[in-house]
Amino acid sequence: MLQSKLFGQTIREVPRDELSKNAQLLIRGGFMDKMMAGVYTYLPLGLRVLRKIENIIREEMNAIGGQEILMPALQNKKDWETTKRWDIEVMMKIKTSYDKEFGLGWTHEEVVTPLAKKYVKSYKDFPFYLYQIQNKFRNEPRAKSGILRGREFSMKDLYSFHTNEEDLDRYYEIAKDAYFKIFEKLEIKNKTFLTYASGGDFSKYSHEFQTITSAGEDTIYICDKCGVAVNEEVVKDNKPECPKCQNKKLKKEKAIEAGNIFKLKERFSQPFNFKYLDKDGKEKLVLMGCYGLGSSRLMGTVVEIFNDKNGIIWPKSIAPFQVHLIKIGGGEEVKRQVEKIYQSCLDKDIETLFDDRGESAGVKFKDADLIGIPIRVVISEKTLSNNCVEVKRRKENKIEMIEIGKLMNYLLIN
Amino acid sequence: MLQSKLFGQTIREVPRDELSKNAQLLIRGGFMDKMMAGVYTYLPLGLRVLRKIENIIREEMNAIGGQEILMPALQNKKDWETTKRWDIEVMMKIKTSYDKEFGLGWTHEEVVTPLAKKYVKSYKDFPFYLYQIQNKFRNEPRAKSGILRGREFSMKDLYSFHTNEEDLDRYYEIAKDAYFKIFEKLEIKNKTFLTYASGGDFSKYSHEFQTITSAGEDTIYICDKCGVAVNEEVVKDNKPECPKCQNKKLKKEKAIEAGNIFKLKERFSQPFNFKYLDKDGKEKLVLMGCYGLGSSRLMGTVVEIFNDKNGIIWPKSIAPFQVHLIKIGGGEEVKRQVEKIYQSCLDKDIETLFDDRGESAGVKFKDADLIGIPIRVVISEKTLSNNCVEVKRRKENKIEMIEIGKLMNYLLIN
Repeated sequence: MLQSKLFGQTIREVPRDELSKNAQLLIRGGFMDKMMAGVYTYLPLGLRVLRKIENIIREEMNAIGGQEILMPALQNKKDWETTKRWDIEVMMKIKTSYDKEFGLGWTHEEVVTPLAKKYVKSYKDFPFYLYQIQNKFRNEPRAKSGILRGREFSMKDLYSFHTNEEDLDRYYEIAKDAYFKIFEKLEIKNKTFLTYASGGDFSKYSHEFQTITSAGEDTIYICDKCGVAVNEEVVKDNKPECPKCQNKKLKKEKAIEAGNIFKLKERFSQPFNFKYLDKDGKEKLVLMGCYGLGSSRLMGTVVEIFNDKNGIIWPKSIAPFQVHLIKIGGGEEVKRQVEKIYQSCLDKDIETLFDDRGESAGVKFKDADLIGIPIRVVISEKTLSNNCVEVKRRKENKIEMIEIGKLMNYLLIN
Repeated sequence: MLQSKLFGQTIREVPRDELSKNAQLLIRGGFMDKMMAGVYTYLPLGLRVLRKIENIIREEMNAIGGQEILMPALQNKKDWETTKRWDIEVMMKIKTSYDKEFGLGWTHEEVVTPLAKKYVKSYKDFPFYLYQIQNKFRNEPRAKSGILRGREFSMKDLYSFHTNEEDLDRYYEIAKDAYFKIFEKLEIKNKTFLTYASGGDFSKYSHEFQTITSAGEDTIYICDKCGVAVNEEVVKDNKPECPKCQNKKLKKEKAIEAGNIFKLKERFSQPFNFKYLDKDGKEKLVLMGCYGLGSSRLMGTVVEIFNDKNGIIWPKSIAPFQVHLIKIGGGEEVKRQVEKIYQSCLDKDIETLFDDRGESAGVKFKDADLIGIPIRVVISEKTLSNNCVEVKRRKENKIEMIEIGKLMNYLLIN
């Protein structure tokens, strides 16, 4: 992509009411624009990152047998009355002129349960797993954490359906593993802890995936021995204790909830009377699990973790481009060589942002640091005089000179 | 994909209130589920089709310089008041408990115009083109045309920005061509006509792309000489006339509007005071064009056009799978051979739905016709006795016997 043509240039100023670091950096870097509190437009750079995160999630969901569907954002009031959740405040509601009321989905148990009930009758059809990646809506009186907590946001929600608790337990563990594979690909696994949280009215605990960052809205207590954590909300009498080994020396941290998983069991099959016919010919209630993961929230989390005073430092797996190719100066030979390199990158499918603008070296370097593409390649008359380009990784200070003839090979293996 | 595992089996009955053929066929075929009037869930088969349509559109938008962004569905009341469109009935509105009102986007001029204004100042930055593929919402009192007119639907909207009218005219023609490339890939080009329609308050005409189908809600008059049409809404005194050649012998047809394009000119830059700095240092209003295309509506349109009494007949480009592999009977050799073929298809990236269910041949053939995958491959003891499989195209009646050893080659070139 030619940077001169890219819509969404870096900007120096951010909206004054934007307090969160993730939104500040993403807005300054030209990844997104703030329309109003908690509501953002993804610009070309930002949409590339979001889609990569969604695809990483999709890949792992498919790997554990998830079938992708797409449920509507519009919600049917009747179904939410069935579960007595219509009046939960988080739901945005639409009142039409023709006397119909709709909700906007912030979760989809009320859609997926009656849906599954229509199609599945026999024990032979179990287990099965349905997921979607979709924009959800939340009624947030004060949205102030950037894309960590938006009024409209991208989320993956997976629902599993089982005939017995052992099978639900089995799949629940598989889903946990899939989540950690996703965190590994996003390079936040070492900061993300399986966290015991409130189970609501249907289970002792649910599990959250909490990622340590000072921007987090939650407080967790980590057990170094077990590598798990407990959410402050379930700590009794101000005495945190590891739910696995009863260790009481836990480390307190601020964290952001990237995802959560619940054994719903009969919580939704019961009100919808979702039963299957068992081997013995008897009707039994279906057991369910649900597994949420915030794709746009993950984008914000990654930015909160991977940045320095100059900007974002994207992990390779979700960087908008792999290489930031920068031309310094306007000489003919520089132009010829940089265009040759750019063409080679296109030919080899190396995603490259080519800074072909007429800006100064200073502006270009500042923008490159802000945008945070993993590898920066600079070509100028000076580097050319040694038949070289200058290569710097965003996460390192070291600058390497690499012979032009060896550059493509370097980029392909890095 | 194993059909035994696929969520969303074919069903014999459709909701009684579902009158449209597209929704009836898509529901019976297991492509989508009706949640309520005008609101559908895309099941795995249906989502595959929708994504393919969206990708065809995306490819053509990228080819004409479009940069993909993603704007929010939530709309800011203030911006719609600026253009005096807040009270248009089609907008669904949300009233929150904290005294804020949001709209839900049915088009995005009110988002993209102030967005572009933030980032673009100089004539040097023009022209540029922004698009998104996103779910839109419409307040439809009676939604009764399946996915031809939903309350929530997938749409592509492209916006172009120019400094002069010649440039807007130039790009408008380019966009027209891109639309016909999309219709060609969907195999509906020969039924789709550039149609002169009302230009609203800012132009004599706008252009619609109308596809002939008896399910269409519009009436158009086609000029056979020019290959264009005129929408009934702009016909004066009940006397249709070709806007290009003044021919008065026009053919009346029912049609569905797949897309429409407008030269907005200053309609939105004016109220938002979106100006650029010209070469001569003067501030001038930006000129805009907008280009809408309904991705889910195109899916419904294709179904309305390509079907017979037994079900859907998908064009190859958007079929959920390319090959429907059907095993008849339970013999060991049939099982061994069909699994070998299925594996070869997977290895060669031929998208294949493998009907491995224990159903009768009759049920399987009926389902295959209903689902409408282009090539059906049947293997049974009878075909195996000739060392063959039976191949039938969905759109033809002819059945061919093909030697097993030659099958993969046949599938790869078809």
